[in-house]
This record gives sequence, structure tokens and C-alpha cells, in this order.
Amino acid sequence: MSRSDSPTIGVFDSGFGGLTVLHALLQRFPQARFVFLGDTARLPYGSKSRRTIARYAAQSAQFLTREQGAEFLVIACNTASALALDAIREAVTVPVLGVIEPGAAVARATSKTGDVLVIATDATVHSHAYAAACETRGLRAIEKACPLLVPLVEEGWTNHPVTAEVLRIYLDELLAQAAAEGLKPDALVLGCTHYPLLRPLIEHAIAQSAGAGIRVIDSAESTADTATKLLRGGDSASGDRAWAPEIRCFATDSVEKFQRLGSKFLGRPVGDVQLIDLGG
Amino acid sequence: MSRSDSPTIGVFDSGFGGLTVLHALLQRFPQARFVFLGDTARLPYGSKSRRTIARYAAQSAQFLTREQGAEFLVIACNTASALALDAIREAVTVPVLGVIEPGAAVARATSKTGDVLVIATDATVHSHAYAAACETRGLRAIEKACPLLVPLVEEGWTNHPVTAEVLRIYLDELLAQAAAEGLKPDALVLGCTHYPLLRPLIEHAIAQSAGAGIRVIDSAESTADTATKLLRGGDSASGDRAWAPEIRCFATDSVEKFQRLGSKFLGRPVGDVQLIDLGG
Repeated sequence: MSRSDSPTIGVFDSGFGGLTVLHALLQRFPQARFVFLGDTARLPYGSKSRRTIARYAAQSAQFLTREQGAEFLVIACNTASALALDAIREAVTVPVLGVIEPGAAVARATSKTGDVLVIATDATVHSHAYAAACETRGLRAIEKACPLLVPLVEEGWTNHPVTAEVLRIYLDELLAQAAAEGLKPDALVLGCTHYPLLRPLIEHAIAQSAGAGIRVIDSAESTADTATKLLRGGDSASGDRAWAPEIRCFATDSVEKFQRLGSKFLGRPVGDVQLIDLGG
Repeated sequence: MSRSDSPTIGVFDSGFGGLTVLHALLQRFPQARFVFLGDTARLPYGSKSRRTIARYAAQSAQFLTREQGAEFLVIACNTASALALDAIREAVTVPVLGVIEPGAAVARATSKTGDVLVIATDATVHSHAYAAACETRGLRAIEKACPLLVPLVEEGWTNHPVTAEVLRIYLDELLAQAAAEGLKPDALVLGCTHYPLLRPLIEHAIAQSAGAGIRVIDSAESTADTATKLLRGGDSASGDRAWAPEIRCFATDSVEKFQRLGSKFLGRPVGDVQLIDLGG
């Protein structure tokens, strides 16, 4: 496949956490063009109304498709995936994929007991989007808000004893709640785009806990796998790896923080981040 | 002093952290009427431009003075105090007091070495408002952003071993930086309205550190002391303590979180929080 045959993939997040989803996509589409937009001026989406989130997300999706030529859109933002996927699909004419359904689908394929755990931000947990997506697949899900994890990742403490201790506490609380409800969870969904950076510590915490053996499901990876199926009809071959993917990053504010922290999420330098104005 | 003689004091914050400033004011003005506004729909101010912050803060100040009758305004928000005090003073006709100058003034009165430490959020540190206010008073200040402290307080971990460990790490880094620059700090300014809830742990961390003996300056308390001087000409007597202060709280969003967490900051139930709309 030549560059001219490869798609332009738009990736949208309210911040830069969605760069972990872009990272997972890069492994699968090394020859694609990527356009990433972080609506950093208007985050956090989690505290805003559904109507406001839908308006912001639709504006952002239109920027990626109309102005940047994206032919496929990945909504790498849990809040927008939970509350604005329909509004985004109405606003654009290209296929749109959120992060929640793929994570729930992999949980269904992974879990033998039918009981799964979900960790996410406060806003995502309050939306109960993962629980709903799990329940429609016949899974029982317990969701837990872990509000300290995003700041710990943004502080750069992704391999720090304090973070390990916080994870131990959150996981113990979650396992105690599951036990109290008679559940035997065997999968844990990472329902926040920041959490893949904590995967080694999370897996270590699980191994040390009463839930040893629980499989970690990274919804960034699950989403990239689903994108592969949709764009290549299940062909997981990633084409000519000699290609370096073309990446353009845009943000509505905080370009400095985006550049400083974004490279950790993307696993490579994010390069220039262009500041754009989407209005109020 | 009767209730009819007592002032109506408006207190403004972008969130509800400013309730610690209201708490400090309540001790000094038990017979006053208080109107508190948290602009929770539009936080965090820290990531927004000076112009946007000035517009939001001026709207909020006008709500408190014109619609709620505040005769004296306390800006219990470090970002708005750093970036929008002039804009607020232009927008209203009543006296306006921010939180930064009082903290710096008490640091000047407290420090014998002339070297002070300031801990605050990332946004406040980037504004260098405390350093500037200290420098005009002949103090040398080292500021440190402590981005994990607000989420730790909001998680309710105000007396938790993880928080104690985070404080130890931050304080050690700050003392090492001070030593490297040849400073001998003897005062630490709490430059964020959330931090008074951590004061016992902060004082414990200092006592265990190389900086043992450093005095903690709570800018909420300093601000309330300055308000007392301005409103009573230095008379610190608080009048008839039999009066219960009258408090009305308003927020632009997230009333649930405001009510749930606000009581910890205020030290008493916040009661009803009215939702208002200040526009976009």
C-alpha cells in the first residue's frame, strides 16, 4: 500500500491523553496520515453538560474532517465517546469510532466469568457508559473512579512508589466491592486514555492483590484493533513498516504542556503543535 | 454591632476551594452576611488566557455586588487575584481584596532571613504572582508547583499516608532547590485555597525535614486578617459571637460536588447551593 492509498485518520480528544490511542494506531497504520486535535482550551469536558460537550465535539470533528481531510475519525476521549458520539456522527459524513464500545467488546471476548472491573475518571464513571456497554454484552461491570491517576501521570510519576501505593489502594477497594456484590472479575478495563502509561504498575498491583490473574484490557489498544478491522476488513498486517507515519497535531490552548507531556503518551516526539481557535 | 450594621461580604472563587477563605472570614465576622460564588462551570481558570479570566472574574464580581448586594469583595482565587484584580476593580465600585498580597505581607512580617518558600498550583506558580509580591517587599521567594495536592484534598485524603509522602517529596525538592540557590527560608506560604486542609500534614512534614522551624503562612488566614483591618480599621474583635453568620452559596455548575466537598473546606455544612448561569 502506498501513501496515496492510505487513509487520513483524525483522532480527537479534549486533551492530549488521546495520544495513547494515536500511539496504538501508529503501530497498525505506519503508512497513514494522522491529524490529532486536543481541545485543550475547553477541557475538562467531564464537568460540562451533554449539550455543551456535543457542541464542542462536533466542532472539533468538523475541523478534522472538513479542514484537515480526515476520512476516518477516532474519538479518543471517554467523555465525548460516552455523551457525544451521536452528535459527532450527525456532524460529519465519515465513519466515527469511540473508545468505549471497543473496550467493552474486548472485555466480552476476554472474560470467562462475565464479571469485569472498569477504572476511569470521575466523569466517565458518572456517565456509566462502560457499565452500559458491558451490560448490553451480558457482562456485569463494577466501575470505580480513580481521580488521582491522571494527576499522577501528568506529574510524570508513572513508575513511582506513591503511584504504586495509590493503585494498590484503589484496586483493593474495587476488589472488596466486587467481592461484596458476589462478583468474580477476571478482566480490568482501563477506561481512561492516561492509564496505559500506568499499565506496568497496574499489572504489578494486580499480581500482588487478591485479584491475581485478572487480565488488563487497554481500551486504546482495543480501539486501534477495531479501527484496523473497520479500515482493512480484519487484515491486521500493517503494510510497509519502512514508512514513517505523518502526524499533525493541533491544540486549542496549552501548546507548551501538550508538547512537554504529549511525547510520553505518544512514545515519540509530538513535534510542532499548532494552536487553533474553535471559538467559545 | 447589629446585623443591620454589618457588611455584606462577597467571596469569589473559580471553584469551591475559596470556602477556606470564607471559613477564615466567618471566625472574624460572625455577624456578617456572606455571599459566595464558585464559577465551577468555567474552571479551571489556570489554563485560560488573562483576557478570558478577566472577563469571567468581572462578570462574577458584578453578580456578587449588583445582584447580591456585596459591599466588600474578597477574591479567594489565586489565578483571578494574580491576573484579574485590576479588571475586577474596574468592574465594580466596592473595595476588592485578593489573596496574594495579604500572604506576601504576612511573609514579610514573619521572615527574619528574608527568604520564603511558596507552594501553589501550576497556574499560580507560572504567573509568578507570589514571587513578584514578595520581591516588592524585599523578600526572595522560591515557588513550587504541587499539582497532586488539590486532587489529594478532593479525594478526601487530607490525613492519609500517601499525602504525607507526597508532601515529604515536594518539601524535600523545594528545600534542595533553596539550598542550591543559597537561600535560608524560614517561612512557607500556602498559595492555594485547598492547602489549609493539609496544614497539619504540612507542619508535620516540615518538622521531619531539613527545614524544621519554617513557619507556615496560610494565605486564607492572612486575607481574612487584612479584610478585618480594612473593614474595622484594625479592630480584631469579632463582635457578638451569638450571631450565626448568614451564608448564601452560588455555583455555575457541579452543585453536587460543591455540596459534597464544600463542607470540608468551610468547616460546616454549606447548605443549599443555588445554580446560576453567567453565560459563556
